[in-house]
Amino acid sequence: MGQRRAAGSGAESTAVRWRRDIHRHPETGFTEFRTASLTAGRLADLGWEVRTGRDAISQDHRLGVPDAAELDAAYRRAAGSGADERYLPSLRGGNTAVVATLHGPRPGPAVGLRADIDALPIVESRDGSHLPERAGFRSVHDGVMHACGHDGHIGMAVELAERLTARPPSAGSVTLFFQPAEEGGRGARAMVPTGVADGIDLLVAVHLGLGLPTGTMASSLDGLLANSKLRAVFRGVSSHASLAPHEGRNALLGAAAATLAVHGLPRIPGHETRVAVGRISGGTSSNIVPDRAEVLLETRADEGAVNEDLEARARTALRGAAEMYGLTVDIELIGGVTTARADRPAVELVEASAAALGLRPVTASAENGVASDDATAFMRRVQEGGGSASYVGLGASLAAPHHTPRFDFDEAALPLGVGLLEEIVRGAARSPAVRDRIRE
Amino acid sequence: MGQRRAAGSGAESTAVRWRRDIHRHPETGFTEFRTASLTAGRLADLGWEVRTGRDAISQDHRLGVPDAAELDAAYRRAAGSGADERYLPSLRGGNTAVVATLHGPRPGPAVGLRADIDALPIVESRDGSHLPERAGFRSVHDGVMHACGHDGHIGMAVELAERLTARPPSAGSVTLFFQPAEEGGRGARAMVPTGVADGIDLLVAVHLGLGLPTGTMASSLDGLLANSKLRAVFRGVSSHASLAPHEGRNALLGAAAATLAVHGLPRIPGHETRVAVGRISGGTSSNIVPDRAEVLLETRADEGAVNEDLEARARTALRGAAEMYGLTVDIELIGGVTTARADRPAVELVEASAAALGLRPVTASAENGVASDDATAFMRRVQEGGGSASYVGLGASLAAPHHTPRFDFDEAALPLGVGLLEEIVRGAARSPAVRDRIRE
Amino acid sequence: MGQRRAAGSGAESTAVRWRRDIHRHPETGFTEFRTASLTAGRLADLGWEVRTGRDAISQDHRLGVPDAAELDAAYRRAAGSGADERYLPSLRGGNTAVVATLHGPRPGPAVGLRADIDALPIVESRDGSHLPERAGFRSVHDGVMHACGHDGHIGMAVELAERLTARPPSAGSVTLFFQPAEEGGRGARAMVPTGVADGIDLLVAVHLGLGLPTGTMASSLDGLLANSKLRAVFRGVSSHASLAPHEGRNALLGAAAATLAVHGLPRIPGHETRVAVGRISGGTSSNIVPDRAEVLLETRADEGAVNEDLEARARTALRGAAEMYGLTVDIELIGGVTTARADRPAVELVEASAAALGLRPVTASAENGVASDDATAFMRRVQEGGGSASYVGLGASLAAPHHTPRFDFDEAALPLGVGLLEEIVRGAARSPAVRDRIRE
Amino acid sequence: MGQRRAAGSGAESTAVRWRRDIHRHPETGFTEFRTASLTAGRLADLGWEVRTGRDAISQDHRLGVPDAAELDAAYRRAAGSGADERYLPSLRGGNTAVVATLHGPRPGPAVGLRADIDALPIVESRDGSHLPERAGFRSVHDGVMHACGHDGHIGMAVELAERLTARPPSAGSVTLFFQPAEEGGRGARAMVPTGVADGIDLLVAVHLGLGLPTGTMASSLDGLLANSKLRAVFRGVSSHASLAPHEGRNALLGAAAATLAVHGLPRIPGHETRVAVGRISGGTSSNIVPDRAEVLLETRADEGAVNEDLEARARTALRGAAEMYGLTVDIELIGGVTTARADRPAVELVEASAAALGLRPVTASAENGVASDDATAFMRRVQEGGGSASYVGLGASLAAPHHTPRFDFDEAALPLGVGLLEEIVRGAARSPAVRDRIRE
Repeated sequence: MGQRRAAGSGAESTAVRWRRDIHRHPETGFTEFRTASLTAGRLADLGWEVRTGRDAISQDHRLGVPDAAELDAAYRRAAGSGADERYLPSLRGGNTAVVATLHGPRPGPAVGLRADIDALPIVESRDGSHLPERAGFRSVHDGVMHACGHDGHIGMAVELAERLTARPPSAGSVTLFFQPAEEGGRGARAMVPTGVADGIDLLVAVHLGLGLPTGTMASSLDGLLANSKLRAVFRGVSSHASLAPHEGRNALLGAAAATLAVHGLPRIPGHETRVAVGRISGGTSSNIVPDRAEVLLETRADEGAVNEDLEARARTALRGAAEMYGLTVDIELIGGVTTARADRPAVELVEASAAALGLRPVTASAENGVASDDATAFMRRVQEGGGSASYVGLGASLAAPHHTPRFDFDEAALPLGVGLLEEIVRGAARSPAVRDRIRE
Repeated sequence: MGQRRAAGSGAESTAVRWRRDIHRHPETGFTEFRTASLTAGRLADLGWEVRTGRDAISQDHRLGVPDAAELDAAYRRAAGSGADERYLPSLRGGNTAVVATLHGPRPGPAVGLRADIDALPIVESRDGSHLPERAGFRSVHDGVMHACGHDGHIGMAVELAERLTARPPSAGSVTLFFQPAEEGGRGARAMVPTGVADGIDLLVAVHLGLGLPTGTMASSLDGLLANSKLRAVFRGVSSHASLAPHEGRNALLGAAAATLAVHGLPRIPGHETRVAVGRISGGTSSNIVPDRAEVLLETRADEGAVNEDLEARARTALRGAAEMYGLTVDIELIGGVTTARADRPAVELVEASAAALGLRPVTASAENGVASDDATAFMRRVQEGGGSASYVGLGASLAAPHHTPRFDFDEAALPLGVGLLEEIVRGAARSPAVRDRIRE
Repeated sequence: MGQRRAAGSGAESTAVRWRRDIHRHPETGFTEFRTASLTAGRLADLGWEVRTGRDAISQDHRLGVPDAAELDAAYRRAAGSGADERYLPSLRGGNTAVVATLHGPRPGPAVGLRADIDALPIVESRDGSHLPERAGFRSVHDGVMHACGHDGHIGMAVELAERLTARPPSAGSVTLFFQPAEEGGRGARAMVPTGVADGIDLLVAVHLGLGLPTGTMASSLDGLLANSKLRAVFRGVSSHASLAPHEGRNALLGAAAATLAVHGLPRIPGHETRVAVGRISGGTSSNIVPDRAEVLLETRADEGAVNEDLEARARTALRGAAEMYGLTVDIELIGGVTTARADRPAVELVEASAAALGLRPVTASAENGVASDDATAFMRRVQEGGGSASYVGLGASLAAPHHTPRFDFDEAALPLGVGLLEEIVRGAARSPAVRDRIRE
Repeated sequence: MGQRRAAGSGAESTAVRWRRDIHRHPETGFTEFRTASLTAGRLADLGWEVRTGRDAISQDHRLGVPDAAELDAAYRRAAGSGADERYLPSLRGGNTAVVATLHGPRPGPAVGLRADIDALPIVESRDGSHLPERAGFRSVHDGVMHACGHDGHIGMAVELAERLTARPPSAGSVTLFFQPAEEGGRGARAMVPTGVADGIDLLVAVHLGLGLPTGTMASSLDGLLANSKLRAVFRGVSSHASLAPHEGRNALLGAAAATLAVHGLPRIPGHETRVAVGRISGGTSSNIVPDRAEVLLETRADEGAVNEDLEARARTALRGAAEMYGLTVDIELIGGVTTARADRPAVELVEASAAALGLRPVTASAENGVASDDATAFMRRVQEGGGSASYVGLGASLAAPHHTPRFDFDEAALPLGVGLLEEIVRGAARSPAVRDRIRE
C-alpha cells in the first residue's frame, strides 16, 4: 500500500483503508513481510521511533517458524506486491515484528498497545454476500485469509498513530506492538525477550469481535486460555501396499489412532479445556504404504497447570499410538501461550475511557466462547515489572464466526476502537497520579 | 530427448539411455506429456504408424484424472523440458497414450506389447549409494520418481522398436502400447474402448523386477490382483477450535475412524487380499476445526468378486465413519483393475523365447508378493477377441523394493528384456501356423 | 437387621449401627429388598405412616430395572439374610421404595427429606487399612459395595426418625423418602408420579462427602448435572474366527469404535460436561466372532439442553459405529436426571440450622467435582408445587474418593448430619410464618 | 450316561447314543469331568488299559485353565449329573484327559487315534428346526454347546472301542486319546509331556464336518493353522465418572484401541492368516471409570513363523494401546498350537481304508476355510519319534457352520467314521510290513 491508495480513498478513514488493503494481502505467521514493512514505514514517516526485525523479536525464541523455502517465497511475494523496501530486508527470515514509540513532551506513564498482524490458512469465501468479495478486497492469496480481525487491529493502530502524531499525549509515551504470529501463540513470546515491553506501565491488548456486538466493550476478558500447539511427525516404513504390505509400517495408522485418543482426553471438572487435531497430512497414493504422517494438534485450559496436564496426556497418546503400529514419533512444541488476568487499575482506566465514549460495558462469559491470545506474554511481562494490563474485547458485530471463510466484522467498530485507544492513552497521561495509581 | 543425446551416448544402449533420461523426468499418471511426446516422436521418426491422444485413449473412460490446474502445470513443465512439440498438443488434457504399429511384409500374427510409462509420487533418495543419484539421473522433479521400473519398460520398447525397424518381423505386425497411468489402474481401461487392442492375436505385458533376479523370467504371473482405488472426501463444519469447538464437525475424525476400520476389514480364507489407506490430507492449523479431509484407499483380491466384496465393505466403513461424527462423505472410484489369467499358447511362446535366450524360468508365488496391473484390461480384450495373452515377469535384481525411495533395478536386465521381446515377436511371425495355434 | 443387634450395640449410635449393618448387606438399584424392608419395618414400629412398593413407586416409570432372574435372586437373598418379612412381599419386582410420614400436633409446614438407599457394583477393598474390613462390616456380597455413602444416609434418617418420634415437631409433618436406584438416576423419577412428594413445602436432600471435610456444610450444591444413561447393544453375525472370519460381523468392533467416538465428543464452552463409557461386554472366546456386545455409557451437563445435545451426538456415534462394521445397534435410555437449583428460603433455613450447630459453611465449586443426583426430580416437583428445595452437602472426610473400592467416610459426620436434619425440621415447624416464607 | 439310556435306546447305535448324551451335557475345556469320567469308565469296562488325570496330562503344561471356583463348580455339577464316580476324583483340578489302550495278540504297529472332547461357550439354538432341540438333546447347560462336533468324535471312538473289543486287531495296539481343551489349543500340548504319545507309529486325528459333505473324506488337511491365544488385561485407575473423570484411567479405552489395532494387523502375502478379538469385558456401570478390562484375542497363520510375527505385532499393539491411555497391560498366552503336515504313509493308509469303505476322496482347500487343531502336538511328537501322522477330514453335512448356535451335523456320518477308523486300525495291523512302511 502506498501513497496512491491512501491519497485516492476520499471519505474512507485510515483505519478502513488500511484494514481493506491488509485484508487483500493476508500473510500468515512470520511471513508478514508486506504487512510489517508497510506498518514500519508508515510509523517512521509519522516520526515515531521504529524498531523492526531482530531489534523487536528474538529469532531464537520463535516457535513454529515456516521453513526457509516458504519464508523466501513469501518474502519475494511481498517484494513484488508493494512492500516497503526500506524495512523489508530487516524482516528477512521471518523476523516480522515492528515496535513503534512516540514520546510525549513530559515524563509520564508508558502505555503499550498490542496489535497482532497475522492471517490464517483459510480459503476466503467468494460468496456475493461476503463484503470483502463484493467490495473488492477479498484475499488475493488463495488459501490465506484475515479471518480473525487482525486486519482491523492494524487499521486501528495506524489511525491511532496518525491522531497521536497530530496531537501527542500530554505526558509519557505510547508504544505500539505490531506482533506477528499471534495465531499459534508464537510471536509475543519471542518479542518479550528483546526487552521491548520492559518499562511499560500500562499494557492494553484489544481484540474485536468475540461475540460482542458493535457499540459494546468488555473491559477484561479473563477467560483467556493457556494452550500448547504440537506438531507430531509419525515415521514408519514405506513399502508397496500390495507386494509387501507387511514390510511397511503405515504412519497414517498412528496418526489416526492418536487423533481419536487426543479427542478422547478427559474433561477436567471446573475448568474450561479444549483439545483439537486440526491437520493430518501423510502419504501420496493408495498403493504406497506411507512412512510419514504429520499431525497438528493443540490443548487449551483456563489454567496453566491444567493445560500442561492435557499436553502431557496428549504426548503420551501420541507415543502410545506410535508404539501400537511399530512407528516412531517426534513431537515438537510449535506454539503456546499462558494465561493472564487483568489488573484492577487497567480495567478501571479502560472502563472510564469506554464510558467517556458511550460504549456499553458487557461481560464476556465462557459460554460465548473463549480463546487464547499470546498478548498474555506481554501482559505477564508488564505485570512482572510492576505495571498493569488488561485484555479488552471491542464489540464488532460479525457476519460469521472467527476462523471461518465468511468471517467479516462491522467496520463501524473501527472508529469506536480508535477512539477507545486514544482515550486510554490520553487518560493515562492526563494526570501524574495515574502512573502511581497503576503502580499501586 | 532427441537426436543429440542419442547420437552422443557412445557405448550406452538405447534402452539404458532412454531409461535414464525418462528416469530424470518422471511424470505421474496422465501427466506423461514429455514422456509420451518423446516416445511418439521417436517411433514416428522410425517410420512406425503412430496414434496419440484421443486416437489412443478414450478421454471419458479415464478415472482419477488430475484437475485442470495440475494438468496445465505439468504440460507447461513438459514444454519447457524437451518434450516433442510435434506430439505435445495432441496429449493436452491428460490424453497421454501412444500406440505405435509396424507392419511386416506379409500377413501374420498381430503381436501387441504393453509398456507402461507413468511414475510415482515418491521423493527419490539422495543417498550416495543410490545409482540414479550417483550417476546423475536422479529425478529433477521433487516428489516424483520412477520407483517401479516403468522407465526401463520404455527403454526396452524403444530399443526394440529400433531393432525391429532395422529388421522387421517376417510376417504380421507389432504394436507397442505406451500406456499412461498404470499406477492406480486407470490408463489401460481407457485405451481399450478406442479399439487399439482389437485384432491383436498375442498380447504380452512385461514387468521387470518383482523379486525375480536378473537372468530369470516368469512366463506368467497369474496372481495379479483385482483392485479398487477409492477417494473419499469427508465434509464437516469448520469452526474455531477454542471459541466454538462444539459448532464444528471435524472431518479428520471421520478420516481417522475410517482408516482404522478399513485396515480392519476381514481376511477372506483362501484368497490373497489387500487393504490400504495410503493418504490422508485435511485441515490447516490446529485452531481451526477442519471441514474437509481426503482419504485415498484401495482394496485388492485375487478374484474380482472378492475384491468387490472388500470394496463394498470399505464403502460401508467410510459411510459409517462419516455418520459417527456428523459428517458427509463422497466416495469416488478413481481406479481399478480386474484379474486375468495367462493362456497356454502365449505362455509356451514366451517360454520358448526365453529358453532360446538362456533365461532361467522361475515361478512367482504369492509369497514373493503379488500386485495388480491394468495390463489385464488389454489381456481380457485380446482374450475376448480370441487371442492369447500373458503377463511376464522379467528378472531384474533390485536395490530396494518397488515403490520405495531407493528402488533401482539392475540395468543388465534391459538387453535381456529387449532380446526376449524381440524373440517373442520373431517367434510369433516365424511360421504361419503360429497364428492358428494361438487362436486355438 | 433386627432387635437383637439394635439392643446389643451399647454405646454405638443408631446411625452408626444401621450404617454398618446396611454396609455389610449392600444392594444395587431396585434390589434393595433387605434395606427397604428393614427401614419400612423400623419406621412402622416407631409409629410412622409407611407406604411401600407400588404405593411409593410407579412401576412403569422405572428405567433400567434388572431382569426378572436378577430380581428374584436378590429377593431370595434378602429373604435369607434378615429382611423384614412384613414388608418384603410389597417390594417384589423391584418396587423398593419406602415413604414414611410423621405428623406433628398442629398444622404446619410439610418437610420432606430424601435418603437414597442403593449400593454400587464395586468390589470392596480387603485392605487392612479399610475400616469396614478392619471393623468387620465389609460387604458380604462380592462385587457390591456402598461406595457412595448411602448407607450413612439411611443411618441418619433412621436415627432422626427415632428422635422425632421421641419428640415430634411442634407443627406440620415430616416425610422421609427412602429412594431406591439413585445411581443411574432411576428411582426418584418413578416415585414422583405416585404423588408422594405432592404437598411438600420444603424438600432437603443431604449427601455426605463430596470433598467437604467433617464439620462443614454446603447449603446448596447447584452444580448438579443433568445426565443420560444409555445401554447400547450391538448385534452382528457370529462365525468361526478361522474357518469363516469374513462371514461374521464382529459386534466388538462397533463397541470399540463407539467407545472412542463417545469419549471424543466435543467440549462445550462455558459448560461442565461429562461423557463416559463405563462398561463393555461381549463375546466368549477368541475363536468365535461375537455377534453381540453391550456398552453402558452416559453423558452429563450442567444444563439440560446441553446434555440432550451430547446424548444425541452419542446416539449418532453409536449408530455410525454400527454401520461401519455391518452391525445393528439398539439404544435404550436406562436412566437420566435433570438439573435443579436451590431456592433462597430453603437455603436460608439450612444455613441457619447449620449455624445453630456450629457447622462451618463452605461453597462447593465445580473444581471439587460435581455429579448428578435424581433428588432433582423431587426438588422440581416440590418447586412446581410452590415449595422450596435445596440439595445440601454434609461434610464427611473421606478415606478414598466416591465410587472407589476404598471409599469410606468419617462416621463422626453422622451425628452432625442427624443434628442438622433435626434442626431443619424443628426450624421449619418453629413458627407458623415459616411456611409462608417458604411459599413466597 | 448310564446303563438305563444305553439299554433303552433300541436301534440307536452306540455312536449316536453317546453323541446325544454328551451333546446334552457339554463341558468346556478342562471342565470335562462328566465326559471324561464316563469315557474312562466305559473303556475300563471294556477291558482297555486306562490312564486318566495326571497320568494322562501334565498339570503344569496346561494353558488357560479356569480358576479354582469354576473348576469346582463344574466338578460338582458333573458329580450331580451322572459322572462315573470311579474316575471322577482323578480328574479333579481340570486334569480331564483319558488315554485308553487295547493290545492285539501279537506285536505290531501302535496306532493312536485322537478324539477331542470339549464344548464351546455358545448358547445353543432353541429353534424348532434345530435337531438337538427337536429330538430333545439340546444342551442342558445354558451358554455351553457342542458346536464343533467333538460329541460326534467321542461317540465314534466309543463305538470303535466296542467293535475292537469284540474283535481285536490282529497285531499291535490301539490307543485312544480323549483330549480335553482342544478349543484354544490347550489340551494336547499338556498331554504330550506325559509320554502318552511316545512309541506311537501311526497317529490319526479325525474331524468331522469342515465343509465336507457326508460320504466324503479328505485324507490330509494340511492347511491347519498355527495359532496363539492371548488374554490381555488392561489396568487403569478407577474414579467417579462425574466427580473426577480426569483422575481415572479408563481401561476400556485401551481395550477399544487395541481391538481396532489388532484387527488392522497387515495381511501377509502368500499366507493364510487370521486375527480376531473375540471377547471384551470390563467395567460395571457408566458412572464408574473402569480400572480393568480383559480382552481375548488370537492370531493364526499357515506357518509358525508367520503366526509368531503376528503374535508379536499383536502384543506391540496391546502395549501401545495401554500406553496411549495411561494404562498397564498384562498379556498371557492362554493357548496356542503349531502346524503339522501329513506323512505319505499315513495318508496312503487312510486313503486305502476310505476306498475300501466307498468314501469319496476330496481335497480341502483354504477357500473352504481352515482352522487350527492342537492334534498337531500329537502329530509332531509321533513324527519326531519316527512315526507317521495325518489329520483327516470326515465328511458330515452341516445344518449351520461350526461354532454357531445352530451347528448340527448329519449323524449318518458317524457309522462311516467308525468304519473308517476301524479299517485304519485293521489295515495297519494286517501285515507286519506295515509298521516298517510307516517307519520308512
